[in-house]
Amino acid sequence: MTENAVFSQNKVLTIDTMNPKVKNVEYAVRGPIVQRAVQIEKELREGVKKPFTEVIKANIGDAHAMGQQPITFFRQVLALCSYPELLKDNMFPEDAKSRARRILQACGGSSLGAYSASQGIDCVRQDVARYIERRDGGVPCDPDNVYLTTGASDGIVTMLKLLVCGEGASKTGVMISIPQYPLYSAALAELGAVQVNYYLNEEKCWSMDLSELERSLAEARKHCNPKVLCIINPGNPTGQVQSRQCIEDVIRFAAKEHLFLMADEVYQDNVYAEGCQFHSFKKVLFELGPQYSNTVELASFHSTSKCYMGECGFRGGYMEVINMDPEVKDQLTKLVSVRLCPPVPGQALMDLVVNSPQPGEPSYTTFMKERTATLRLLAEKAKLTEEILNTVPGITCNPVQGAMYSFPNISLPQKAIKEAKALGQAPDMFYCMKMLEETGICLVPGSGFGQKDGTYHFRMTILPPTDKLKILLAKVKEFHQKFTQQYS
Amino acid sequence: MTENAVFSQNKVLTIDTMNPKVKNVEYAVRGPIVQRAVQIEKELREGVKKPFTEVIKANIGDAHAMGQQPITFFRQVLALCSYPELLKDNMFPEDAKSRARRILQACGGSSLGAYSASQGIDCVRQDVARYIERRDGGVPCDPDNVYLTTGASDGIVTMLKLLVCGEGASKTGVMISIPQYPLYSAALAELGAVQVNYYLNEEKCWSMDLSELERSLAEARKHCNPKVLCIINPGNPTGQVQSRQCIEDVIRFAAKEHLFLMADEVYQDNVYAEGCQFHSFKKVLFELGPQYSNTVELASFHSTSKCYMGECGFRGGYMEVINMDPEVKDQLTKLVSVRLCPPVPGQALMDLVVNSPQPGEPSYTTFMKERTATLRLLAEKAKLTEEILNTVPGITCNPVQGAMYSFPNISLPQKAIKEAKALGQAPDMFYCMKMLEETGICLVPGSGFGQKDGTYHFRMTILPPTDKLKILLAKVKEFHQKFTQQYS
Ligand SMILES: Cc1ncc(COP(=O)(O)O)c(C=O)c1O
Ligand SMILES: Cc1ncc(COP(=O)(O)O)c(C=O)c1O
Repeated sequence: MTENAVFSQNKVLTIDTMNPKVKNVEYAVRGPIVQRAVQIEKELREGVKKPFTEVIKANIGDAHAMGQQPITFFRQVLALCSYPELLKDNMFPEDAKSRARRILQACGGSSLGAYSASQGIDCVRQDVARYIERRDGGVPCDPDNVYLTTGASDGIVTMLKLLVCGEGASKTGVMISIPQYPLYSAALAELGAVQVNYYLNEEKCWSMDLSELERSLAEARKHCNPKVLCIINPGNPTGQVQSRQCIEDVIRFAAKEHLFLMADEVYQDNVYAEGCQFHSFKKVLFELGPQYSNTVELASFHSTSKCYMGECGFRGGYMEVINMDPEVKDQLTKLVSVRLCPPVPGQALMDLVVNSPQPGEPSYTTFMKERTATLRLLAEKAKLTEEILNTVPGITCNPVQGAMYSFPNISLPQKAIKEAKALGQAPDMFYCMKMLEETGICLVPGSGFGQKDGTYHFRMTILPPTDKLKILLAKVKEFHQKFTQQYS
Repeated sequence: MTENAVFSQNKVLTIDTMNPKVKNVEYAVRGPIVQRAVQIEKELREGVKKPFTEVIKANIGDAHAMGQQPITFFRQVLALCSYPELLKDNMFPEDAKSRARRILQACGGSSLGAYSASQGIDCVRQDVARYIERRDGGVPCDPDNVYLTTGASDGIVTMLKLLVCGEGASKTGVMISIPQYPLYSAALAELGAVQVNYYLNEEKCWSMDLSELERSLAEARKHCNPKVLCIINPGNPTGQVQSRQCIEDVIRFAAKEHLFLMADEVYQDNVYAEGCQFHSFKKVLFELGPQYSNTVELASFHSTSKCYMGECGFRGGYMEVINMDPEVKDQLTKLVSVRLCPPVPGQALMDLVVNSPQPGEPSYTTFMKERTATLRLLAEKAKLTEEILNTVPGITCNPVQGAMYSFPNISLPQKAIKEAKALGQAPDMFYCMKMLEETGICLVPGSGFGQKDGTYHFRMTILPPTDKLKILLAKVKEFHQKFTQQYS
C-alpha cells in the first residue's frame, strides 16, 4: 500500500492531477455492470460454474452483435469500394457496381484510403441533402449545411463544443431530457457545461410537457445561461415517439425562449406503434412558417448505427445545421478539419443509406425485403417486450413506440433499497447487478440515464433474437419475483 | 449590413457567443490556402482561364489521393470482412480468407457493423502488442496498455484531454516542437492549455537540442505548469529522423524534469536517409534500464494513415500507454467509452498492418513487393525534392530523412515582406497564395506550423507521382525566381 502510494505520487499523471472534468464523466451504457458482464463471460469460458451458461447482453443498441444481418446491397458496395478489382467480376449486381464507381470517383485517388474533405465527401453530402428533402416532403436542404460525422456521437459532441462557454452564472446551460442517453451528460461534464434536466412524463408515455420545460428553464436561469435544448426522438432509453403537436410546442418554446435546438433523430426509421409517425424537427419547423424557419437555430443528427441498418461499427453519420450564423459555420468547418475527416467507409455507407436501391434497379427487391423484414421483426419484439414485462407484478412498461429499448418502472422493496444504500449503490444498480450474477442477463440500471427521485427502472434493448428475447423476458420475470420475495 | 447585424444579434450562437477556445483553434493544413485551392479547382472546371490547367496539391500527407496504390492483401481482407459471402469464392488467397475469418470472429455477431469494445477489439490489441514487441527487439508489451483509436489524431487529443487542467499559473503547459504538426496547437487551443514552444535546430537538420528544451521549460515554469513533452519522430513538417542519442537525452530530460512523454511515431516506417534508423521511444526507454522504464510515463501513437499503407480514410490507429497510473487508466477507458468505439474497418486494417503476411503464406511475396516498391519510391522522391529545391537560389532544404515532407527555408525580399504585412498576411502565406494563383501549386506556409521569427518556409509533401513532382519542383523553382525578381 505505502509503496504503491509513493509510486503513484511520483507520477506526473494521477487521479489527483488529471483533468477533473474527465473525472466527472459517467457513461452507464458501458459502465461497471457491463465490465462485470465481460468478466463473467471470461469466467464462463474458463469453466467457472454459474447458474447460467451464457451472458445475454441487452445493454446496448448494437443490432449486429445481436444477430441482425447487414443489408446485402450495402455490404456488396462496401466490398467493391474496398477492393475495386471486384468491379471486373460478374458476381455483383450492376447497381451495386455503379454505386461503388460513383463513390470511388468522389474519393481522392479513387480510394477509400484517401482523406476526404473534412465536412465529408461532396457527393455524399448532396445525396444526404436530397434524402432530407424527400423525407421532409420537399423542404429544401442545402448540402453546405450537411456535415458528415464519425457516428452521431461525434456530431453531437462537436455541436456542444461550439455552444458551451462561460463561467459561473454565465456558464452555458444545456437542457436535456431525463431519462437521457448518457452521451449527453458525459459530453456536458467533459465540457464543463451546466446540465439542465427536464423530466419526461412517464405517465403520458414519456412525452414532453411544456410546463416541465418552463419549470426547468426558469430554475436554470437562476444559476446559469441556458442556451440549448436537446431532444431525442424517437427516444433512448424511453422508446417514445413524440407527436407532431409536441414537436411544434417545443419549437415554439425554443423560439420564444431563444434556445438552440439539437434534435437527435438517429432512430427515425424505428417507429413501431400504431398511430405513431416520425416527424423531423426540420419539417415541422418549416411548416410553422418563415417566422420560425428563418430564425430558429437547429442541428439535427442521424447515423448509420440504428434504424434497419444497425451498422454501428462503421461510425457513419451526418448532421444538418439550420439557420446557423455564417461566421459560426466557418468556425465549425475549421473545427472539424482538425480531426481531418470522418471514416470514409462510414461516409460511403451513409451514402448508401440515403441513396438506397430504387424501384427498377436489380437490388431493389432484395433490399426492400431485407429492410422490411428487419423493421417488422423489431416491431414484433417491441410489442413482445412490452407485453411480457407488463405481466410481471411490480414492473410497469410503457409501450415501446419506437427506437430499440424498453425502460420499465420497477418497484423495489424497501429492504432492497436499504441494502443497496448501505453498499453505496443506486438501488437499481444493486438490482441489475444481482440479476446479472444470478441469470447472466446484462441490463443497464435506470440511474445511468437519470430518473425521477424515488423511481427505479432498467433499460433493456429489444434486439436479441426472438427466441432469446423470450428466454430473457422469462428470466427477468422470474428474477423480479424472486428478488421481490427475498427482500419483502 | 445593418440588416445582417440585426439578424446576427438575434441568433443564439454567434461568433461573439460561441466557445472562445474553438475560435482560437487554427489548422493550417486545411486552412485558407487549401480553401482557395478548392475554389480554383471549381473555377477551372467552370472554364475560368488560368495560367495552369490543374491544381497540384502538395499540402497534405494523403498518399492515395496522390495516386499511391493500396496494398492488395489489405484490401482483399477488408472486402472479405465487408461481404463475407466472398469467403465462399475461390478468387481470394487462403491467407486473406483466414485473416478475414479471424477478424470477423472477434467482432460482435461476426460483423464489422457491431460496436467493438471501446478500447478496441481484443485480438487486434493482442496483435498490436506482439508487433510492438517484435519492433522493439522483445521489450514486452501488455495488450491492456494498447488502445485502438480513430486515427492517431484521436489518440493524441484523448491523451491531451486527460492531461490538461488548471487555471492561471497552474494551467498545464504542453511542450511542442516548433515547427509542429498543427493538430497539437489546435488541440491545445481547444483545451485551453498553454502551448510551450521548443525550437528544432534547423542548422543541425531539425534536431532537438537539450539546451533549447531546458530554455523552453525554464521560461514556461514562470507562468504555467509544464507537464507534457510532445515529440514527433520522424518529423512532420520537418522530415528529420531523431538519432538514438537524441531520444535518450529527451527521455533523461523528461525523467529529471518530471514530464509526461507523448511520442508521435506515425511515420515509423518512413525512414529514407542513409545512416538514419527509426528508434521507438519505448525501446530506448527500456534500454535505459528499470530506473527509467519503471517510472517514465509515455504514450506513443501509430496510425494506418502513413508509412507504406497511406490508408488515411479508414481512420485506424493505436496508442500504447506506459507506466500509466492504474486509476488514470480506468479514467481513460471510461473516457473512450463515451464515443463507443473506433471505426471497426479501421481496426481491422490496423490489425493487418501489425500482422501482415508472413514468409510462406501465399500473399507474402506480393505484399513485400508492394511494400518495398512504395517505400523505395518515397525514398527516391525525398531525395529528388531535396536536390532540386537546393538548386534554387534563396531556397535551402534540409535532407528529407523521413516522413513525407520537405520544409525548406525561403528567403523573401524585404519588399515582399512589407507588402504582405500591409495586407495583414504572414509573408510566407503571401508567397504561397501567390504561388497558388500563378502556378496552381498548393503548399502550406511555414507560419502554419510555427518557425523562428524572421524565417520563412513552406511545407511540401513528397507524395505526387514522380513525373508530377518534377513538374511541381520546376514550377516552384521558376516561381521563386520570378517572385524574388519581382520584389527586389
Ligand atoms: C439517442 C442516441 N444518439 C446517438 C447515439 C450515438 O450513436 P452513433 O455514434 O453510433 O451514431 C446513440 C447510440 O446508441 C443513441 O441512442
Ligand atoms: C505527425 C502526425 N501525427 C498525427 C497525424 C494524424 O494522422 P491520422 O489521424 O490520420 O492517423 C498526422 C497526419 O498527418 C501527422 O503528420
